[in-house]
Amino acid sequence: MECCDSVCLIKDGWFREINDMWPGHYFALKVDSVLSCVKSDYQDIMVLKTTNHGNALILDGVIQCTEKDEFAYQEMIAFLPLCSHPNPERVLIVGGGDGGVAREVDKHPLVKKIVQIEIDQKVIDASKKYLPNMAKGFNSSKLELKVCDGFEYMKCHKNEFDVIITDSTDPIGPASALFSESYFSLLKGALRSGGIICSQGGTAWNDIETVKKTLDHCRRHFKEVRYSIACVPTYPTGQNGFFVGALDGNSDLTTPKFKFTDADLEKYELKYYNTQIHSASFVLPNFARKALYG
Amino acid sequence: MECCDSVCLIKDGWFREINDMWPGHYFALKVDSVLSCVKSDYQDIMVLKTTNHGNALILDGVIQCTEKDEFAYQEMIAFLPLCSHPNPERVLIVGGGDGGVAREVDKHPLVKKIVQIEIDQKVIDASKKYLPNMAKGFNSSKLELKVCDGFEYMKCHKNEFDVIITDSTDPIGPASALFSESYFSLLKGALRSGGIICSQGGTAWNDIETVKKTLDHCRRHFKEVRYSIACVPTYPTGQNGFFVGALDGNSDLTTPKFKFTDADLEKYELKYYNTQIHSASFVLPNFARKALYG
Repeated sequence: MECCDSVCLIKDGWFREINDMWPGHYFALKVDSVLSCVKSDYQDIMVLKTTNHGNALILDGVIQCTEKDEFAYQEMIAFLPLCSHPNPERVLIVGGGDGGVAREVDKHPLVKKIVQIEIDQKVIDASKKYLPNMAKGFNSSKLELKVCDGFEYMKCHKNEFDVIITDSTDPIGPASALFSESYFSLLKGALRSGGIICSQGGTAWNDIETVKKTLDHCRRHFKEVRYSIACVPTYPTGQNGFFVGALDGNSDLTTPKFKFTDADLEKYELKYYNTQIHSASFVLPNFARKALYG
Repeated sequence: MECCDSVCLIKDGWFREINDMWPGHYFALKVDSVLSCVKSDYQDIMVLKTTNHGNALILDGVIQCTEKDEFAYQEMIAFLPLCSHPNPERVLIVGGGDGGVAREVDKHPLVKKIVQIEIDQKVIDASKKYLPNMAKGFNSSKLELKVCDGFEYMKCHKNEFDVIITDSTDPIGPASALFSESYFSLLKGALRSGGIICSQGGTAWNDIETVKKTLDHCRRHFKEVRYSIACVPTYPTGQNGFFVGALDGNSDLTTPKFKFTDADLEKYELKYYNTQIHSASFVLPNFARKALYG
């Protein structure tokens, strides 16, 4: 096995997610074994077999997903924008190299075509080997998977998509450009009329200034912008936020246009997302509402 | 300084909340210094000065609150039942020895009288010394504080309260009785007609079987029962649930009868609770909805 720097975060049988992005606290997972640890051109990629959370993907020392709770993040980042759009035929996924988002997007009955742009082939390879329940997203007949830079791709693809989902790592490292104003400008250009975006949005409890700044970047290019929160226990502060933006200022992002029935939830094995939680996820605690909406 | 067993959980400057109640993961806080560590007749009581979360109260090695995020828990456990009741004049708090719940209950304009029963004087003392922003709840002119056993108290006080809030530790240790069916029977007896209860309810992500069992105990004595979830980053899995029960089967616990205005939220310095989040907190992810409501 090759080795990467992230193994240093394992001590006494625990992986400790110690990071300057969240000073003063960390989350730890008990490790059964290190399944893989490699360096790609972009990042450290480590896969752990944990004692209670299934396999876990760690990029540059940060937990991206565990098999136990990944569904919460994947379902929310997929269905918040998809169900807010009246007809999300063409979908672009930027990032999402584990395949989990593609797995969810594929389920939406109105989606006809998915393009996914992941920069790091080694993340895809790791997922295919160690996270088969997520990597099965790559088997979607609707999917065209390209290994390249999402920024560059969008410069050459204008007016093509109804929904763009950015499933990125945090603002430090290879994904930092995906939180910039110019990225939101590119997203806008790649959307067709009525388009909607959804991007990974950190956590309001940890660094609300960064959340506010990114939301403001989004607001410069999208007429209706909302911040949603989902509970994801293995992410810092136990939750993950999402920036959701619509080109159309009359969009009510908080009320889904497409509603899964209870039978659909069973059929598609949705464990987190439902129509009620879509709306509820946009209701913020006062401190966040005040900071983000003024 | 006296010493207690909980200091063993501090290593290399981090307090690690390792516990059999949540196998395979833990949350850690960076410690500036140990302010106090004593053994009472009931539990280990440790207060830490942390680097980024203010002071933290630890009972038997489990984080009860940090100054950074305690407001989320205190506001929700207080206002979920208080705002669901049309006229919560008389309120009983069982536990809550840090004073934070009393601080919030005192703010509700319809509350006239608060009785609080805390079993452990040493928790009250620690809070008064190290958590003044929570212990100020003990200064409420509405409050009568008694140091005794909540179980015993309720055996002698029938038909007295409109709302009873149980702010307890987890089901292991001194609070285990507060999750039993007989406790819910006692709560029922201590309530006046139309009464409502709210109890600390663990987390659905960790041990949903225990949540389900306690909810079922509650259902045997209350006609309308709901489970609510709040985000509290320093609790296991980053959230805390609440059992809310009403004697009256026609109660809609999810729609507050008393609505704080935006001016009220400012006046009472509410940082988490608002009318919208009251309703949203009862919307559960599918896996929890299925397990708890069938």
